[in-house]
Amino acid sequence: MSEPPQIKVSISLHQDTLYELETAIEHAAKSNYNSITIPLAHRRFEREFVQEPLKTGHNRFTRSDLLLSSTQWLNRVICRLSCGVDCDSEDDNVRKQGESTLRQELSYAEHLVQNGYILLRLKSGNCANLARVTTVGLKGVLLVEVPMVNPKVAQANWRSDADYECGADDTWNWWNNFRSYADFDTHVKVALEFTADIPEKREIYRWLGEPVDAVVLSSNIFLTNANNYAVLSKAHQELLVLFYRTFGCHFIVKANPDDKRLVHYADYIKYILRSNYKKDPMQGYDDLLEIPLQPLYDNLDSFTYEVFEKDPVKYILYQNAIEEALRDRVPSSEIQTRTSIIMVVGGGRGPLVRAALNAASKSKRMVKIYVVEKNPNAIVTLSALINELWKDKNIELISTDMREFEPPEKADILVSELLGSFGDNELSPECLDGAQKHLKPDGVSIPCKSTSYLNPCMAPKIYSQIRSMEKSLHAKDRIVTSRYMEGTYVAYLKNAYHIDNPQAVFEFVHPNLDPIIDNSRYKTLRFKAQLDCVMHGFCGYFDSVLYKDITISIHPFTHTKGLASWFSMFFPLTEPVQVRAGEEIVVNFWRCVASHKVWYEWNITAPRQSHIHNVQGRAQPIWK
Amino acid sequence: MSEPPQIKVSISLHQDTLYELETAIEHAAKSNYNSITIPLAHRRFEREFVQEPLKTGHNRFTRSDLLLSSTQWLNRVICRLSCGVDCDSEDDNVRKQGESTLRQELSYAEHLVQNGYILLRLKSGNCANLARVTTVGLKGVLLVEVPMVNPKVAQANWRSDADYECGADDTWNWWNNFRSYADFDTHVKVALEFTADIPEKREIYRWLGEPVDAVVLSSNIFLTNANNYAVLSKAHQELLVLFYRTFGCHFIVKANPDDKRLVHYADYIKYILRSNYKKDPMQGYDDLLEIPLQPLYDNLDSFTYEVFEKDPVKYILYQNAIEEALRDRVPSSEIQTRTSIIMVVGGGRGPLVRAALNAASKSKRMVKIYVVEKNPNAIVTLSALINELWKDKNIELISTDMREFEPPEKADILVSELLGSFGDNELSPECLDGAQKHLKPDGVSIPCKSTSYLNPCMAPKIYSQIRSMEKSLHAKDRIVTSRYMEGTYVAYLKNAYHIDNPQAVFEFVHPNLDPIIDNSRYKTLRFKAQLDCVMHGFCGYFDSVLYKDITISIHPFTHTKGLASWFSMFFPLTEPVQVRAGEEIVVNFWRCVASHKVWYEWNITAPRQSHIHNVQGRAQPIWK
Repeated sequence: MSEPPQIKVSISLHQDTLYELETAIEHAAKSNYNSITIPLAHRRFEREFVQEPLKTGHNRFTRSDLLLSSTQWLNRVICRLSCGVDCDSEDDNVRKQGESTLRQELSYAEHLVQNGYILLRLKSGNCANLARVTTVGLKGVLLVEVPMVNPKVAQANWRSDADYECGADDTWNWWNNFRSYADFDTHVKVALEFTADIPEKREIYRWLGEPVDAVVLSSNIFLTNANNYAVLSKAHQELLVLFYRTFGCHFIVKANPDDKRLVHYADYIKYILRSNYKKDPMQGYDDLLEIPLQPLYDNLDSFTYEVFEKDPVKYILYQNAIEEALRDRVPSSEIQTRTSIIMVVGGGRGPLVRAALNAASKSKRMVKIYVVEKNPNAIVTLSALINELWKDKNIELISTDMREFEPPEKADILVSELLGSFGDNELSPECLDGAQKHLKPDGVSIPCKSTSYLNPCMAPKIYSQIRSMEKSLHAKDRIVTSRYMEGTYVAYLKNAYHIDNPQAVFEFVHPNLDPIIDNSRYKTLRFKAQLDCVMHGFCGYFDSVLYKDITISIHPFTHTKGLASWFSMFFPLTEPVQVRAGEEIVVNFWRCVASHKVWYEWNITAPRQSHIHNVQGRAQPIWK
Repeated sequence: MSEPPQIKVSISLHQDTLYELETAIEHAAKSNYNSITIPLAHRRFEREFVQEPLKTGHNRFTRSDLLLSSTQWLNRVICRLSCGVDCDSEDDNVRKQGESTLRQELSYAEHLVQNGYILLRLKSGNCANLARVTTVGLKGVLLVEVPMVNPKVAQANWRSDADYECGADDTWNWWNNFRSYADFDTHVKVALEFTADIPEKREIYRWLGEPVDAVVLSSNIFLTNANNYAVLSKAHQELLVLFYRTFGCHFIVKANPDDKRLVHYADYIKYILRSNYKKDPMQGYDDLLEIPLQPLYDNLDSFTYEVFEKDPVKYILYQNAIEEALRDRVPSSEIQTRTSIIMVVGGGRGPLVRAALNAASKSKRMVKIYVVEKNPNAIVTLSALINELWKDKNIELISTDMREFEPPEKADILVSELLGSFGDNELSPECLDGAQKHLKPDGVSIPCKSTSYLNPCMAPKIYSQIRSMEKSLHAKDRIVTSRYMEGTYVAYLKNAYHIDNPQAVFEFVHPNLDPIIDNSRYKTLRFKAQLDCVMHGFCGYFDSVLYKDITISIHPFTHTKGLASWFSMFFPLTEPVQVRAGEEIVVNFWRCVASHKVWYEWNITAPRQSHIHNVQGRAQPIWK
């Protein structure tokens, strides 16, 4: 067995009370903790704001900043706000006391840690004022601590006098209220406390859609095994690994500072994570937004070609598809006499030509290849390849747009790779409709069919990224425009919750034998939410039949193994839509076609009516 | 009885089919109709888009524009789009045929009438594609014809095989879907068809909140009275008057062109409207948005002073209040010996001084008046009044801010008029807290208490106005910013539906005897929707006790008769909230106070969570 990789795991030791700051940091460090999580206010100092102006009381509620250097404050300490206050109390005095306490603490916490972490424990979903007081003008990260399962629910199992509202018992709703009131502020993240009880799988998946930044583990969820070691249950171990894989989150361990097993907890967590570590080949791309390519309108650059040519799977599948098509079209008896005409439309820097040559060689079929490419920069590469590497091959290079190409003969096989993350979004239908006239009546197109898929999803991280693209003269203004909120994006969506399974949207078949070709489409899809959640938009995928049973797919249920060329598509909604468990989600999707552009429009008609997004392609036209 | 006023009523004659355009216009004019409403497409010309390109069929589907002049097209004709098509059919061919038909007609209609009217009849709430096709890039007004009561509902009373969804039977939902999909486009308005059945009152009130531009009357809702005249039922007459008063709408009469009573219908409608006409003294202000004044921060100008001084009621009530206070403070036995000190804080151009002088004279009490005014321009007027008109009165003019004023003696009565539409929004609490130190221990403040009120409301017209304030480089962009959507406005709200009754929000008492004065406030209010509706924001009002039982109020249930100085306040929500009948609406309202400004924040927590509006007063601070 190979040595577990030295991945970086950051663990903070949570202290209920604190006597001596430097000693505590030293003690935690010796026990293999990177930092300590401490109450910001010192217990000894009671505060009374109503009777006493802040000025005189200010220096007395906590310790001095001079105890540590700025770097130590930032890296070694997570400040925790008082949780004994109630900003949402119906009693005005209690509420005002809470507001003043938290404002004072927040101000001091930001003084100490600048852009660092501040921890706030959430105790209910009645938190509008709390959200207002604690999130205004945040500079650092407000870690909102939420238990995975409401302690009252556990209680309710054996107590009948417990009073909690239905729905309000779900701690996700606490968090959802808080961050909705805070307008999905990117500075607000989750510190999710693992509880002894583990919720249903779908509830865990919903948490995976949230911006979880830390996992909180209490020493009391550790079990003692036969060897007297503290261990986590199998289920808790799996959770730990799952959250670390999704978020690369850090950990906060709640334990008594005198607990003899302090070192063990830290080492055990690291051990579990390291021994279950799997490198994600797409690491680094997580939830990063990209604008979909428009290879038809823009000429791709060398860097982009190179990235796509590196796909370990795609061109092998193309090669297999061409090989099978060649075998089907030319019986063994004719391999010496019959030459198949292959047209590669959109040759790029030659990967499909290479696939076609390999297919010909493997199937021992004779081929003549026409390579059509409109990008003059790619033509340079193709010419060089043909003149040097492929000079003994029967290849003709044509520098033109495939829609205007006038070949001297008709093709047996038309090969193209104009597929985008949503199938038709790089305009393969429009291109292939133009090129298919050069196909023999029995000729085949590779790919011969592509289908797009959609599902509604909760993706606050993506949503916040899009929102933050809005430029504003005044940083405090809230700006939402169609320019960003109605665009479409490509992203490796990791931190997202899929509200329902994908459904097919549009289908395109090549060659298209309809008497009048119309590539506009309109489809209504109906989904259902299993849990309360927030819908931020729709994830899009595609699959494509290259030839017979050879397909490529980024549909999550049928994803081609190793295929790396496409991330999912994301279609945002202008404003997040709060959805209740059991509610139906009805979405309309249009593919619109005009003389010089193609675009998608979308809106929802349930659970509530939305305006139509990307009207006339105002945010994102795809130029023909 | 006086002659009914010659109000302008515009009536169009709706023609099912049309043979000769000019004749028809002439015939209608002779029957006292201003215009005719005609099908845009000519029945003789069947259209088939799928088989035939538009170019060749284009000139054949309707009549030529040369038949009339542009002005005639605009003023004499309302074009009606085909209603035999179905843009939301599940059958792709039917849908595409519908799209092409309507696009062609719309294009031609806009060619004919430019910014004029185009009529479209709505037949169901399944209209996402219809809304998309007919509202994109609208230049004119799209009149969406909707029956007040669904004909199927009437049918269902005696047929059991009628199939319609529950909820979908409400034609308001058809309209609401349509305009929600069309993003509350200001170009889209309602042509409401009065049906024989009249819905419940609250449903009628909901329609009064919508942008109704025309009322459609079919000849078959006319009854024949004993004298063989066609008349409307009393209920229909009342509806007619109500809608005309609210909207000044025009009318479309559906009748057979050969109907002998054509002239009578037109004359009858005009007769009903004229004989029930009541001039609204506020006419011209309807639903116009104004930014609330900040008289503390900005110096009011002469025009504004003049407008407010014209209020026929306000200063009489002030005078009465001062008079009663004088009588209470100085018994008859002391009227020769005791002089009451009145301080008018915020003297403006003197109306309160005048009220105080009148009160003194009427009560025969002696007064000394200090007039405090910070606006140097108003000081000019006040000096002139004191030196000329009031030179024998005991009046001292002090040119300063009332919060800094240091008077030589303490006052019996402190009179001010710093009230805004939401009571405290012109900072009366802050001002009076500063001035009240000059009051004798038993002195009184006029006003002595003010209370603000709120209720949720549907006000698409106001909402659209606010939305259209957003400036955009590209007219097609959808832009929503806090700058406008989180501001507060003052408006004479006529075209609005009040979702629930107002409730009290904040209360301020003067003088404020709290040991520590805190003018920040936080209140949570709970409302309930009786009908499906859309919430665009909250209407705000106030009432104020001047002295004892003398009050001024703009609360709709207790509105002081004739009081004209204040319109309602409007607090918008960033995005309209679709509300279902029976749903609870929970809103939080904050009054926030900082060293140099005061502002309101608000959000809703039910039926769904909204972000907090006007955070830190980003859209609308009220400067101290």
